[in-house]
Amino acid sequence: MTADTTPDFLTALRRRYATKQFDAAKSIPADTWRALEESLVLTPSSFGLQPWKFIVVTHPDLRTQLREVSWNQPQCTDASHFVVLAARDGLEQADIDRWIHRMTTVQGGSPADAAPLQSMIEGFVSSMTREQRHAWNVKQVYIALGQLMTTAAIAGVDSCPMEGIDPAAYDRILGLDGSGYATAVACALGYRSANDKYASTPKARFPHEEVVMHL
Amino acid sequence: MTADTTPDFLTALRRRYATKQFDAAKSIPADTWRALEESLVLTPSSFGLQPWKFIVVTHPDLRTQLREVSWNQPQCTDASHFVVLAARDGLEQADIDRWIHRMTTVQGGSPADAAPLQSMIEGFVSSMTREQRHAWNVKQVYIALGQLMTTAAIAGVDSCPMEGIDPAAYDRILGLDGSGYATAVACALGYRSANDKYASTPKARFPHEEVVMHL
Repeated sequence: MTADTTPDFLTALRRRYATKQFDAAKSIPADTWRALEESLVLTPSSFGLQPWKFIVVTHPDLRTQLREVSWNQPQCTDASHFVVLAARDGLEQADIDRWIHRMTTVQGGSPADAAPLQSMIEGFVSSMTREQRHAWNVKQVYIALGQLMTTAAIAGVDSCPMEGIDPAAYDRILGLDGSGYATAVACALGYRSANDKYASTPKARFPHEEVVMHL
Repeated sequence: MTADTTPDFLTALRRRYATKQFDAAKSIPADTWRALEESLVLTPSSFGLQPWKFIVVTHPDLRTQLREVSWNQPQCTDASHFVVLAARDGLEQADIDRWIHRMTTVQGGSPADAAPLQSMIEGFVSSMTREQRHAWNVKQVYIALGQLMTTAAIAGVDSCPMEGIDPAAYDRILGLDGSGYATAVACALGYRSANDKYASTPKARFPHEEVVMHL
């Protein structure tokens, strides 16, 4: 008999699944939720630009409205927490300036020190159309989605990523229209219901050797 | 004095940063690397389709060639491991069939049981152009990037996400042309060099209250 050396994070990822039925009576403890919010905030992004807002929707009326434009999926209302991940819908000089200002404030150094980085970002951003910038920002948001689901699993919190939603309707319901941010994807978090048959369904992935190549 | 109740995952995420200089003499232990590969394979994706390949590039010649088309960034050659995350460049009936076959093989049940899911996937996929399918797949790949960097940090492994690369040149160097998969992003993994000045730079993020909204 050998000791089990499986890292805890792997045990957590093997246990996780896209939870379809949450136990509406179970809430994520406040300190755990604070840690998950911080993991969202700490998400890495290209050039550090953090082109996102994360909207934690608590109000029951709003969650009911979101459910109506999410194919009536019960996760919207039954999960302990529901996060809408929104991406900056463009990226302007003011966004870059805001980031450089924040960076130099936190890290010290003058804007002049940051000038080479600022030029690089400006050059990259100016090469893209508005649509390309939005798409780029959405990709960054998906890093946050990945980090959130991973840390949730490690914290023993179940989650369900939700793409089957009407983003334009979400924007309207959440008041994002005109804010410069647009709904990219959502994530329900909480605890699986004892009745969720998917909880005991074996996890299906393609075989390792079909997915990972070594060169 | 109160006990520190910070979860380990948060300590790890606070410690991580986009590592610019790796210690070329330090390798990720084989069992740790296996766990990180498995965390890639376990990444959740829309409908479970896993529209990706992960290419672990070990050959020094290939890594030198990749560095040449990555703005000469030293992470390409100096990090212990270098992963190219590639997305399916379209999504065809055969991809859906392959996934349904795999799912029913692993989970039991007949293709007839899976027919409603299959129809839903087909309906969704057929509503998109080839370019939209590719973009959708790339977003899924970014979930994998997020999960990889998060689990790496927890395993004490440093990483650097790499978007500043020439994806078309990567495809050529790695032989992906015509494979149906295209380079989306890369990630260098290993251990920070003692000389990396960025390791001690304070992490800059926008203030929590500017990033997270509660409704």
